[in-house]
Amino acid sequence: MNITEYMEQVGRQARAASRAMARADGATRNRALGLIADAIERDAAVLRAANQLDLDAARAAGMAPAMLDRLALSEQAIATMVAGLRQIVSLPDPIGEISNMKSRPSGIQVGQMRVPLGVIGIIYEARPNVTVDAAGLCIKSGNATILRGGSEAIHCNRALAALVKEGLAGAGLPADGVQVVDTTDRAAVGALITMPQYVDVIVPRGGKGLIARLMAEATVPMIKHLDGICHVYIDAKADLQKALDIAYNAKCHRYGTCNTMETLLVARAIAPTVLPALAKRYLTQQVELRADAEAHAILEGYPHLARATEEDWATEYLAPILAVRVVDGIDAAMEHINTWSSKHTEAIVTEDYSDALRFLREVDSASVMVNASTRFADGFEYGLGAEIGISNDKLHARGPVGLEGLTSLKYVVFGHGEVRK
Amino acid sequence: MNITEYMEQVGRQARAASRAMARADGATRNRALGLIADAIERDAAVLRAANQLDLDAARAAGMAPAMLDRLALSEQAIATMVAGLRQIVSLPDPIGEISNMKSRPSGIQVGQMRVPLGVIGIIYEARPNVTVDAAGLCIKSGNATILRGGSEAIHCNRALAALVKEGLAGAGLPADGVQVVDTTDRAAVGALITMPQYVDVIVPRGGKGLIARLMAEATVPMIKHLDGICHVYIDAKADLQKALDIAYNAKCHRYGTCNTMETLLVARAIAPTVLPALAKRYLTQQVELRADAEAHAILEGYPHLARATEEDWATEYLAPILAVRVVDGIDAAMEHINTWSSKHTEAIVTEDYSDALRFLREVDSASVMVNASTRFADGFEYGLGAEIGISNDKLHARGPVGLEGLTSLKYVVFGHGEVRK
Repeated sequence: MNITEYMEQVGRQARAASRAMARADGATRNRALGLIADAIERDAAVLRAANQLDLDAARAAGMAPAMLDRLALSEQAIATMVAGLRQIVSLPDPIGEISNMKSRPSGIQVGQMRVPLGVIGIIYEARPNVTVDAAGLCIKSGNATILRGGSEAIHCNRALAALVKEGLAGAGLPADGVQVVDTTDRAAVGALITMPQYVDVIVPRGGKGLIARLMAEATVPMIKHLDGICHVYIDAKADLQKALDIAYNAKCHRYGTCNTMETLLVARAIAPTVLPALAKRYLTQQVELRADAEAHAILEGYPHLARATEEDWATEYLAPILAVRVVDGIDAAMEHINTWSSKHTEAIVTEDYSDALRFLREVDSASVMVNASTRFADGFEYGLGAEIGISNDKLHARGPVGLEGLTSLKYVVFGHGEVRK
Repeated sequence: MNITEYMEQVGRQARAASRAMARADGATRNRALGLIADAIERDAAVLRAANQLDLDAARAAGMAPAMLDRLALSEQAIATMVAGLRQIVSLPDPIGEISNMKSRPSGIQVGQMRVPLGVIGIIYEARPNVTVDAAGLCIKSGNATILRGGSEAIHCNRALAALVKEGLAGAGLPADGVQVVDTTDRAAVGALITMPQYVDVIVPRGGKGLIARLMAEATVPMIKHLDGICHVYIDAKADLQKALDIAYNAKCHRYGTCNTMETLLVARAIAPTVLPALAKRYLTQQVELRADAEAHAILEGYPHLARATEEDWATEYLAPILAVRVVDGIDAAMEHINTWSSKHTEAIVTEDYSDALRFLREVDSASVMVNASTRFADGFEYGLGAEIGISNDKLHARGPVGLEGLTSLKYVVFGHGEVRK
């Protein structure tokens, strides 16, 4: 069987299984999740042995230490997977809820029922824990899933897939409710993202390179974000202490995350006060500051100072580097943001009521904040219970995506024999 | 300027105007709508003269009478456009609402704010009234709009565009808030559907041919439906009178609409009773019945009877033709529907509580009904106030799409200086 035929078969099986997954009640789906957690706990040693095969092969192939680290499935990582599954069990069932039920003049009653999307494709890189995390969220939301992990993790992913299928079968659900693509051939990804007849949405989990590649080719819709070029704007009316705390936390809490601040905008009136105080904080972490002319003059003498070019406004550093620009005020700040932002997350620090409301209303990003660190843009911090990904798109799901993002609303009509006049 | 450059300019202008449209408050947007309605009323004669130029050209080019009819802008059609705009003014403002606001353990408050999508592209065929109907909905929802009407209606669309721009300017909104693509070159459509940097969503309004063509090429997401292959299933436990009323209305109320029934499924136990009674009703409208073997035997003697082939299950007739099939019961009916339906609208006629609930839950279509005619699948009947289109997709909007479908939810965070620990 060639790759196209194989993926066609995987797709057909997923579509068929999706009906049984959607029909299953919440208790059955939870039972499957519990059985998978038990099986992973029981077979921890088997999983670590499979992971060792992947690690040996990756080391032999010269994989970089950072990547090896992501590939490793430690005892701790296994315990976290198990705990994650049990936490998903405890979340409310997203499926079947009927909302907005109204009686219409014709006599019919109309509402919207929350239902699974159908088949979710997940494409990810080295981390084998995604296999279980993603499968768990898709099972909980009544979807069938096709998982395509990195080729480096194939042994571990196979072993995990066997346990997932065992759990599904134990709860009376179809084993094809979750399928792991069992080939390291890259053509499998190309097939998966171009089968809209079998796959309803693709969720890529991985770096920018992966996502850019998929975007160029996919005909199946994706829930994805490419860049996180997030801004903090310190308004002239900012509380100085809040400004220092937020601008420091948004940059230095973690450098590699998509909700980390990459550009700081400061109102001219407060810049001579706030920038030197902030520089003292950044110096403790050796943060490099790339400043426009005005900020550069104020920051003169800071040991890691450089001049910003336009390229800096468009760069997601994911590193202890920060672009800094002095602006006239809120209008110039919003103009900069609407021009350069990747529409992920932006925050204003201000005590001015009208500026706060204007920023919330007029900044066109997935998350917009007043007096809080951009690092809060996260499914758990927002109370979604779990996060399958973050979306920079405006259609369907926007911002952190929880279980609801894996569902759809269909109209349901309760009639009593009504006909259209 | 070539077409690519022209469309690039249109797109850039739309993106720029979308910010002012989104910032405008509801009263300003309503004022623009009122001014446009007034201007159309004032210039009815001008519009009819422009329409006459289109009609003359179309007649000279040998356009079919049915198409000429759709192209004509009668006095009545102008009055309907004006009334439509004033009705849109009376709808509640969809923008700015904040929902699901919650306090989180970190101290932040998180909610979701309803905001415009940004730039909407509308692609439609002959009917010039779409220019005003679509522009009205997009203005109401705070979006900028690019309208691409049929080349046959270019004079009338230009005249309408001038009045729309007059109304926008009168309310202090940018004239580029609504742009009519001012060329009959077909390459303009190709450009419009492949500018995701400028256009957030495309709404095609027109026949299957148009939509199929767009689907093959578009990289901008679309709110669209291709087919309406709708089913009514008459269950063994159906009330006979309701079954006759609904099956007759769903087929015969209007033949050319997407929510018209195209296939009737009847449970074996009730088929010998219901089919002959229904045939008497259909005979009054000379409806052709294409029946499977079992239904054919029962309907023997009906003057417009033919044998159904598999192709009939897949056909949207849009005509007084109906496919008829006898099935075992609800499982076979749902199997048929999930195989052949275009996922638009399906109805069950039954007095059985459990079958009704199963049908609602398990049929995977945008609208699922119990004891009501499929003809109710419509934005006005559902109480949306207005309808920009109908979606068969599962992401974003599903089923009839009102103003909400032209909006998005972004997260808003109200903080008090919180940072991530």
